[in-house]
Amino acid sequence: MITLSLIGIGTGNLDHVTLAAVRALNNADLILLPRKGESKSDLINLRRLLCERLLEAPVTTKIVEFDLPSRDDHNDYLSAVDDWHAAIASVWAQLMDEHLPNGGRVGMLVWGDPSLYDSSLRITQRLSAAGKQVDIEVVPGITSLQVLTAEHKIPLNALAEPVQITTGRRLRERGWPNDAATVAVMLDSGGAFTTLPFEDTYIWWGAYLGMDKQCLIKGWLSEVSDQIIQRRAELRDTHGWIMDIYLLAKKPEM
Amino acid sequence: MITLSLIGIGTGNLDHVTLAAVRALNNADLILLPRKGESKSDLINLRRLLCERLLEAPVTTKIVEFDLPSRDDHNDYLSAVDDWHAAIASVWAQLMDEHLPNGGRVGMLVWGDPSLYDSSLRITQRLSAAGKQVDIEVVPGITSLQVLTAEHKIPLNALAEPVQITTGRRLRERGWPNDAATVAVMLDSGGAFTTLPFEDTYIWWGAYLGMDKQCLIKGWLSEVSDQIIQRRAELRDTHGWIMDIYLLAKKPEM
Ligand SMILES: C[S@@+](CC[C@H](N)C(=O)[O-])C[C@H]1O[C@@H](n2cnc3c(N)ncnc32)[C@H](O)[C@@H]1O
Ligand SMILES: C[S@@+](CC[C@H](N)C(=O)[O-])C[C@H]1O[C@@H](n2cnc3c(N)ncnc32)[C@H](O)[C@@H]1O
Repeated sequence: MITLSLIGIGTGNLDHVTLAAVRALNNADLILLPRKGESKSDLINLRRLLCERLLEAPVTTKIVEFDLPSRDDHNDYLSAVDDWHAAIASVWAQLMDEHLPNGGRVGMLVWGDPSLYDSSLRITQRLSAAGKQVDIEVVPGITSLQVLTAEHKIPLNALAEPVQITTGRRLRERGWPNDAATVAVMLDSGGAFTTLPFEDTYIWWGAYLGMDKQCLIKGWLSEVSDQIIQRRAELRDTHGWIMDIYLLAKKPEM
Repeated sequence: MITLSLIGIGTGNLDHVTLAAVRALNNADLILLPRKGESKSDLINLRRLLCERLLEAPVTTKIVEFDLPSRDDHNDYLSAVDDWHAAIASVWAQLMDEHLPNGGRVGMLVWGDPSLYDSSLRITQRLSAAGKQVDIEVVPGITSLQVLTAEHKIPLNALAEPVQITTGRRLRERGWPNDAATVAVMLDSGGAFTTLPFEDTYIWWGAYLGMDKQCLIKGWLSEVSDQIIQRRAELRDTHGWIMDIYLLAKKPEM
């Protein structure tokens, strides 16, 4: 029997891991570390460092790196994602069979929190669907959205008001969501906020949150929009990759 | 000079604190613990336990408990909250003057994450407004919403779809928010979901998340709504208080 722990590890700051995550890591017999290609090598390095720093008995825990299958974006988005998840599930199953033929505990390090725009839970469902008996355990982790608000020292919601969490793609396609004065945007391939009317809208933006290269910008969209676009392009050139997230509010209390 | 750390401590499971939170606790010269009255004594006990377990030099860290001023709900909601925050800020300022006359580091233990439906950041703004020079630091913590999804082993969002986080009050007043197939509801005084049309709606509900008395129920609203209402009333009777949270989705992928 296999127990699979999806362990939220935060988004760059190693001190954001929880005691529960440290325990789950140390209880694992096997830790699987996905490699996502050269340009994102910062991310695998960070996971390696986490294991080095937090494993008390690294000799008895087997750490196996594997190349994450790449996504074939020729089909439409949803079926491309579908195929991709199936491919990842089959790699996971192979690695478990190979390294834990008699069962045991597998740990997967999940960026941020496993609940938020992450595929691990959907991929594990395919394991069961494919007939592989796996017990799942989820260990929550600090999300990029929480690091954004912590570093800007702001609340996520206005007093007693709702918040919408959405994607860059969706913001471009549908504009400002109804029924929400505050909107958090993730997975933006760049500047989806420029498609909104700027009037009265404030932005708190952050890239590489939790890391040494963290960058924060805030201000009225009418004043900082260009600056963010430019800074984002420069940072991406410098580092070879970027992850950013932002909170937008209409006429925020300040 | 005073540095005030708002330290997210998670929502009941002591292992959900982060290494950063442990460090912030241990760096504090003074820790202020609010007492919220008899019926919620579980909450102060949990904070006391956290200090006991995580402080490495409890003798040098001064722990001061104080009674949280109570809210006068005779006025309208927003001005009642306003007065209440002002009263709390003045208690905080007094305690800092009394126990750290020469400045130092103050730690406040914040339930869950300081960004999510929590007043601490708004109260600290009043400190500065009242002329008290305070440097703020925010340490993120695991939210009740993350424990809900972790314990139910579900993602927060449907694939690439948005999520609305809202309150029970708002759900009652405005119904299902536009532009969101998934809705997380907090601060519900009880069963706001019963005011929705039940059709095709699934609920993942949780109370006392992270604690020994944690209770989870999930199912189609048409099937589990009564059960949740009844269980909630029983639990509240038994324990003298309750905190619950839930995720609603229309026709979820499952
Ligand atoms: C696939 S999602 C994963 C989110 C992750 N599960 C979490 O809890 O934050 C990736 C998106 O999260 C955001 N993100 C993740 N890490 C980040 C970081 N360190 N700084 C800024 N944004 C980040 C970006 O919006 C990015 O496009
Ligand atoms: C004032 S808000 C504080 C939220 C907190 N800052 C967080 O990050 O979860 C209180 C609401 O959070 C939710 N909540 C907090 N702790 C909870 C727990 N242990 N179990 C269930 N719900 C909880 C409930 O909806 C409750 O009404």
